[in-house]
Amino acid sequence: MAQESSQITPRYLTGDKAGLQEFLAKFDVFLFDCDGVLWSGDHLFPGTVETLELLRNNGKQVVFVTNNSTKSRADYRKKLESLGIPSTVEEIFSSSYSSSIYISRILQLPENKRKVYVIGETGIEQELRSENVPFIGGTDPAYRRDVTPDDYKKIAAGDESIIDPEVGVVLVGLDFHMNYLKMALAYHYIRRGAVFLATNIDSTLPSSGSLFPGAGSMSAPLIMMLNKEPIALGKPSQAMMDSIEGKFKFDRSRACMVGDRANTDIRFGLEGKLGGTLGVLTGVASKDDFVSGDVRPHAYLDKLSDLLGSE
Amino acid sequence: MAQESSQITPRYLTGDKAGLQEFLAKFDVFLFDCDGVLWSGDHLFPGTVETLELLRNNGKQVVFVTNNSTKSRADYRKKLESLGIPSTVEEIFSSSYSSSIYISRILQLPENKRKVYVIGETGIEQELRSENVPFIGGTDPAYRRDVTPDDYKKIAAGDESIIDPEVGVVLVGLDFHMNYLKMALAYHYIRRGAVFLATNIDSTLPSSGSLFPGAGSMSAPLIMMLNKEPIALGKPSQAMMDSIEGKFKFDRSRACMVGDRANTDIRFGLEGKLGGTLGVLTGVASKDDFVSGDVRPHAYLDKLSDLLGSE
Repeated sequence: MAQESSQITPRYLTGDKAGLQEFLAKFDVFLFDCDGVLWSGDHLFPGTVETLELLRNNGKQVVFVTNNSTKSRADYRKKLESLGIPSTVEEIFSSSYSSSIYISRILQLPENKRKVYVIGETGIEQELRSENVPFIGGTDPAYRRDVTPDDYKKIAAGDESIIDPEVGVVLVGLDFHMNYLKMALAYHYIRRGAVFLATNIDSTLPSSGSLFPGAGSMSAPLIMMLNKEPIALGKPSQAMMDSIEGKFKFDRSRACMVGDRANTDIRFGLEGKLGGTLGVLTGVASKDDFVSGDVRPHAYLDKLSDLLGSE
Repeated sequence: MAQESSQITPRYLTGDKAGLQEFLAKFDVFLFDCDGVLWSGDHLFPGTVETLELLRNNGKQVVFVTNNSTKSRADYRKKLESLGIPSTVEEIFSSSYSSSIYISRILQLPENKRKVYVIGETGIEQELRSENVPFIGGTDPAYRRDVTPDDYKKIAAGDESIIDPEVGVVLVGLDFHMNYLKMALAYHYIRRGAVFLATNIDSTLPSSGSLFPGAGSMSAPLIMMLNKEPIALGKPSQAMMDSIEGKFKFDRSRACMVGDRANTDIRFGLEGKLGGTLGVLTGVASKDDFVSGDVRPHAYLDKLSDLLGSE
């Protein structure tokens, strides 16, 4: 994939009215990465609402694809609404949703190994609940404490007061309350045979115009300890693409992925063999990343609202 | 090194009286890894005290080399004493000590960048204090809290209420109180130019007959986020070997490293071009690791006290 992609010469479309019209005409579906594309943190980029309106008015299907696992789809819709962006829950694909679908519908777990040990926030819990997947950990305050000498002994011994024998999956997402105890438990569950899943593997999270630890940073210690990579359910994992396609039944050649990160968003679209990928420079990637990097979009814009220049 | 080492056919010395005598006669200095060799957790292996006594009675210099950064040398001497092992602070080399020496005597920091941001426990703090190195973080309760929306803004902006402009080093050791805020601060200090140091990079910590997250697990998220490795000051880093040699002025060809981990202990001795390396099977490595692995000791024993079989 990387070799193919590095053959692409990305087309710069800002201010190019004819180019924009030609590009938009190729697609029926636009998959949007959100943070870094539509907004940054709590700051809505000017023109986002108008751009989405333009696409919808032209009959395009819009899908919001987010690796943010801390929110459920319902939370995410509220966030969109609070920013003034109209949407429905059905238009939203979060990595928490994608993970829940994967666990409930794709993983074949033995009868007595169906519980999920969660590292993450409420979004994951809500989506697991909506798929009737039993889980422990997550936001449970019992796990938000210091490790004790007793914990070491009990964890090492597999004592059922702390190690639940029914756990067959460890799902790691972004957890703002990550601690030593949670990490130790995840490690021991995986050593005992649990499947190692990650909502997504973005190492950083954009916020306040800078970067902070992302979900990948929660998996990093486990990857190092276990010498094993998780199955990732967010972009660029094709498990997420398959699930989006399963829902929307779209023609991949008529779909375009829009994002600010080459290694997640653009790769996601390229590996998914979508008809197009569109990079924007309002997030992580620089112009150099898009133009000279290993993973290049078909086209790029200074900012999403430059699409309005097609009118 | 790995190639050289994989040429070694490790000699199994348990029960081989003549072989043991010949092996011991080659060395004046024995460097000991501790956990997994002399004891496990709080459990002293039978025969440890007698074995050390045998070596000392035969005029051997004994050095305790530990990657445990949570303890200072004085703490470690107390631990040895509590287990009934006589020792002096001067015989102990911990990664916390090695790190402090490196910062105070080797790193050339600009006048206004001499503060260390510590991720770790009290052992590091004590050793930094003994070398008069100013530091923040560590066990300070102000850092043991949840991250707030305000933190993101202030950290991103480099606000001096939370980002100390004098920090020129981030030192990452094992921290049982690791959290999101500490990780975010370490990341931002390094992005702002601080030197990235790790007391050691062991991914796991032996305890209660099992393994738990080690100091390397604290560096792992930062390595992933920054795409940058720390300078490590514990085994197998030769910075630690140089510092031990500087202190004891020993002849490397007459020194032997004893340990339970191929990739840290045995590698440490091999890369340091010591005359010998001795593996024991009471810790992490298996017989297979020693006999068929990439990094092999010159000799190995079922357990350290098998050295008593030389008498």
